[in-house]
Amino acid sequence: MKEMILGVIGCGRIGQMHVENLIKCFPNVRIRLVCDTAPDLEWALKWKIPITDNLDQLLDCKEIEAVLIAAPSTYHIDLIKRVAAVGKHIFCEKPLAFDLDSIQEAVEAVETAGIKFQVGFNRRFDNDYKSIRDRVAAGVVGKPYVVKITNRGPVHPGLDFITNSGGMFMDKAVHDFDMAQYVTGQKVVEVFTHAGCLSNPEFAETGDVDTIMTSLRLSDGTLCNTDCARVTNYGYDQRLEIFGEKGMIKTRNIGETNITMNVPGVGLVADNPKWGFAERYFDAFVEQMKAFIAYLSNDDMKSPVDGYAAKSAVAVAVAARKSFQEKRSVKVSEVL
Amino acid sequence: MKEMILGVIGCGRIGQMHVENLIKCFPNVRIRLVCDTAPDLEWALKWKIPITDNLDQLLDCKEIEAVLIAAPSTYHIDLIKRVAAVGKHIFCEKPLAFDLDSIQEAVEAVETAGIKFQVGFNRRFDNDYKSIRDRVAAGVVGKPYVVKITNRGPVHPGLDFITNSGGMFMDKAVHDFDMAQYVTGQKVVEVFTHAGCLSNPEFAETGDVDTIMTSLRLSDGTLCNTDCARVTNYGYDQRLEIFGEKGMIKTRNIGETNITMNVPGVGLVADNPKWGFAERYFDAFVEQMKAFIAYLSNDDMKSPVDGYAAKSAVAVAVAARKSFQEKRSVKVSEVL
Amino acid sequence: MKEMILGVIGCGRIGQMHVENLIKCFPNVRIRLVCDTAPDLEWALKWKIPITDNLDQLLDCKEIEAVLIAAPSTYHIDLIKRVAAVGKHIFCEKPLAFDLDSIQEAVEAVETAGIKFQVGFNRRFDNDYKSIRDRVAAGVVGKPYVVKITNRGPVHPGLDFITNSGGMFMDKAVHDFDMAQYVTGQKVVEVFTHAGCLSNPEFAETGDVDTIMTSLRLSDGTLCNTDCARVTNYGYDQRLEIFGEKGMIKTRNIGETNITMNVPGVGLVADNPKWGFAERYFDAFVEQMKAFIAYLSNDDMKSPVDGYAAKSAVAVAVAARKSFQEKRSVKVSEVL
Amino acid sequence: MKEMILGVIGCGRIGQMHVENLIKCFPNVRIRLVCDTAPDLEWALKWKIPITDNLDQLLDCKEIEAVLIAAPSTYHIDLIKRVAAVGKHIFCEKPLAFDLDSIQEAVEAVETAGIKFQVGFNRRFDNDYKSIRDRVAAGVVGKPYVVKITNRGPVHPGLDFITNSGGMFMDKAVHDFDMAQYVTGQKVVEVFTHAGCLSNPEFAETGDVDTIMTSLRLSDGTLCNTDCARVTNYGYDQRLEIFGEKGMIKTRNIGETNITMNVPGVGLVADNPKWGFAERYFDAFVEQMKAFIAYLSNDDMKSPVDGYAAKSAVAVAVAARKSFQEKRSVKVSEVL
Repeated sequence: MKEMILGVIGCGRIGQMHVENLIKCFPNVRIRLVCDTAPDLEWALKWKIPITDNLDQLLDCKEIEAVLIAAPSTYHIDLIKRVAAVGKHIFCEKPLAFDLDSIQEAVEAVETAGIKFQVGFNRRFDNDYKSIRDRVAAGVVGKPYVVKITNRGPVHPGLDFITNSGGMFMDKAVHDFDMAQYVTGQKVVEVFTHAGCLSNPEFAETGDVDTIMTSLRLSDGTLCNTDCARVTNYGYDQRLEIFGEKGMIKTRNIGETNITMNVPGVGLVADNPKWGFAERYFDAFVEQMKAFIAYLSNDDMKSPVDGYAAKSAVAVAVAARKSFQEKRSVKVSEVL
Repeated sequence: MKEMILGVIGCGRIGQMHVENLIKCFPNVRIRLVCDTAPDLEWALKWKIPITDNLDQLLDCKEIEAVLIAAPSTYHIDLIKRVAAVGKHIFCEKPLAFDLDSIQEAVEAVETAGIKFQVGFNRRFDNDYKSIRDRVAAGVVGKPYVVKITNRGPVHPGLDFITNSGGMFMDKAVHDFDMAQYVTGQKVVEVFTHAGCLSNPEFAETGDVDTIMTSLRLSDGTLCNTDCARVTNYGYDQRLEIFGEKGMIKTRNIGETNITMNVPGVGLVADNPKWGFAERYFDAFVEQMKAFIAYLSNDDMKSPVDGYAAKSAVAVAVAARKSFQEKRSVKVSEVL
Repeated sequence: MKEMILGVIGCGRIGQMHVENLIKCFPNVRIRLVCDTAPDLEWALKWKIPITDNLDQLLDCKEIEAVLIAAPSTYHIDLIKRVAAVGKHIFCEKPLAFDLDSIQEAVEAVETAGIKFQVGFNRRFDNDYKSIRDRVAAGVVGKPYVVKITNRGPVHPGLDFITNSGGMFMDKAVHDFDMAQYVTGQKVVEVFTHAGCLSNPEFAETGDVDTIMTSLRLSDGTLCNTDCARVTNYGYDQRLEIFGEKGMIKTRNIGETNITMNVPGVGLVADNPKWGFAERYFDAFVEQMKAFIAYLSNDDMKSPVDGYAAKSAVAVAVAARKSFQEKRSVKVSEVL
Repeated sequence: MKEMILGVIGCGRIGQMHVENLIKCFPNVRIRLVCDTAPDLEWALKWKIPITDNLDQLLDCKEIEAVLIAAPSTYHIDLIKRVAAVGKHIFCEKPLAFDLDSIQEAVEAVETAGIKFQVGFNRRFDNDYKSIRDRVAAGVVGKPYVVKITNRGPVHPGLDFITNSGGMFMDKAVHDFDMAQYVTGQKVVEVFTHAGCLSNPEFAETGDVDTIMTSLRLSDGTLCNTDCARVTNYGYDQRLEIFGEKGMIKTRNIGETNITMNVPGVGLVADNPKWGFAERYFDAFVEQMKAFIAYLSNDDMKSPVDGYAAKSAVAVAVAARKSFQEKRSVKVSEVL
């Protein structure tokens, strides 16, 4: 295998996780340069990676074949355009942007440049979700009737985070909308939303919510419910269920161990779900990188998650938010 | 314990089940007379119960203290009025009627007569649901955020049944609406419905549906999703989940046995859910009768399920159907 | 159905449970007379049952067709002989006796009298165990290789009980030996025992043990392990596993509910096993009585659990105890 | 982290697995040379590893700091002596040998040479087993009463394998004996064995068995049962249960996914256990290497699994085989 040389833009929590996974799991990948506005020198030293706050240095580096963009979402579009302009391939974290026009611009920049482009919907690379999707595609469930998706985080990410996140529809529920489309191969046609600040009423003034429930109608008539919440206190509750013509398939949560204990006076105690996204989707993040590297290495492959898929998921998020704001059912076609 | 003497009006599938449970499980209860328009003599002989097609004979029988009404739903209101008029206590199967005015008439007839009155929402008496409700009431879950209810039957009941059932909203989804209110102690305020003929498109012409998904907003802001379907082919899928401030509580399906088998080439196979409502809710039907008999025996008890509860659940069903027909979110207050 | 008139000898915890089950679940059975050396008048009044301390009164009562013997085990043989002598059918609790000669005497008395006779191995009537046995008999598991049986009680029954119980081999482990033979249709050929006073060292001076592990060889070569303990503190742990040519089948414990809760900081908590034998085997005790009544009512039926089965299980218990005492593997043929 | 340079002796199935894991998961480890009597050139080329059939070349290579021995078990002792003689550290697959004297010789050679030495009991590094052991050590279970270990392989490894494996006691059951000691921190004092050729009677003439059940007494009185089988056809069934003073802790099997499906007419189907040891213990094999590399890198660490632990497990295996052959309980002290 030939060596693959990458650059990374944005190296906060997610960026560092990607870099560490690449170092630990991909002997043939070399991180040539990391660029961050506030470079974490200690971390870079520990992992022996060159780091800079000068984006041009990275863009000008001929060796770098592809770039991971893990900067805050508000910078994604501009960064995509700049990286595309120098002809480097791109992996960009989701969401690309919070509005559809910006995403369209990015998609066009990518196409104009003729580069490879993958968006970070990590859950598609989770073994359980991928396996369900493959079985659905193979007809194991028959025609789907009902899809139910649960996506609940362990603790509130805090005021700082949510003010820059695009809000819960863009940041968190967008995963569910992508999943609904990915797992069924259908498109969301219409969405109705109930939502509120249930766990953290003090965040209501931010205009954001902490609990979202949507009712989706998909293109083949399949009915879908998603429930998405910021705070469980019991871990990262991630489940999916599809009921169809030939039965009902579902995933369960995954704990740190497969141990149970009968505790006198308490009950039969198993592990709660793994705590956060980094623990729960560790393998999925690695598989996502594998898919990106395979895509880079193989000119016959299509993007595992292209810009249109990303735009489509964000479109549902925009419609879902509109439904919440206008207290009515919204067709996705209204927002495109 | 003194003997309790009952009459039964309507003795089809549900009526026979009640009678058989009473005979098998309640030594102190005597079924004095069963009345049916088409008396099943063979069945009556087997169980040694007097049977008649003459309703007056039952209404005139002084010995009979209380009457079970298990006739088709369209006759419920008229029968309640007639039984109330002769001062006998009443247990009536759900739904009382398909419209709210009729239910109100029945409730008033009962109050005027001063009789005891219980409606047949059997699921409230299921050990698992009752236990969840008790824990929620005791604050174990803290403030509820999200409730999810699954209610799927094994096979389509057939054209004959559905044309007389009041439709799926009245006949089947009404259980979910009652459950949402029962288990949280809240009221449904608003409902949005997606529905369709997904498993049996040929029934579309009846105007009824076979799959319903509702999104409910409850009085304290709790978000609730129900999914209700006619046909699983894998059994009677009955689940409930409540996620709240202090954790997430849920029930699982119950099979005929607690056995699993690792089958080579197949997997780890456990039982599917019990097949139909009679198997799944056998114990709940018996507990429901226990509650009725305790209520009859004790003048200090309130009705376990009174007419207002029944009316309230039907009101949500009416609103849910209206939401489906008008493709918009409907407030329950609109239909009351 | 014609009425079945029974008498009961011995009305402590087990006897009262049988009587109450019969009253609650068998409308056609009448308990004509209960005989106990220390009659519990309050209990008898509550259940409206004639009670006496005069055994002859019961034996002389012509109406009584069959007798339940639930007296202490040390009286079983004598009582069987006396009841057999007056030609009444018998249901007798296990163990019949602690030595094989006495059991043989009882078996002969029953045969001489030509009466019906059933011994109380209640676990055979448990739905899960019975279903496993039926599947094994039907070849679902193929040739069995390994059987594992777990039989652990919740709390120590106390010094009083164990001094009259015949010891743990006779009182508790005997169920496992019967189960090993029942579920496979094979006979135990050889047994090796490890045992000790692990949970309650202070009972060591009684000569009894509180934890037993046996390794059994069955007639077809199947290997079987049983573990039996007095004290779990977490409930009545009752499990069975059979691994064979075509897979592995097993039962799980049963809790009071089928509810789980994700509790923050604790885990995913399900119910511990039901607490005691009366809760765990409630249905099995009822089914056992059903089987006895069906056997009484039908002259073509064989005894559901005859004296030879009882003797066979006790023979294994005698061999297991001998193995423990002599620290060597013991063939069951040595003790017969 | 400084680079760690390793050599490998013996590169069949297990050896190749170790090498591949090292390459994929340990960027700082370099495999300098692989030595095999029949070098697999194609495999070596694929993984870009120098390979030779000349052992001296490996022993003479100054760069190599430590050697993995994964040759057939019959060569282990000789290879350990030769590698120890040149002062390189050693990781050796289990079992070291089939007799205790040879193991003692190896242990002494290691001590004389003053090298680091770790034996390959991979299961100790499994997350579930390790976590149970940690909890037991922390007193979570209190005093253990009963330990049950299940160790069943998916398919018979074939006549070739078993004739060179040392037999099932040495090759497979030895894992259980190590686990019983590891998880409790106790020693096996006494063992009784039942065994036979149950799944593959045609292998009886090899003198080996395919199903083993042992009853072990541990040093603190804990009772332990192991059942070990060659052929399940449903996967690699690996379970452990400890019942003690404060409750009962156990592991469950792990499937390829966490998906279940309600299949009409079949049941609720989950995954069978992962198929073979390489799938089931993939993570444990990686963790085992991590522990070896940490041990190499840190002169204050003790061996994660030293020669005495290996000898102790083999001693139990020798005693267990003797018990089977002599049909009696055998004390481990008899064979030491």
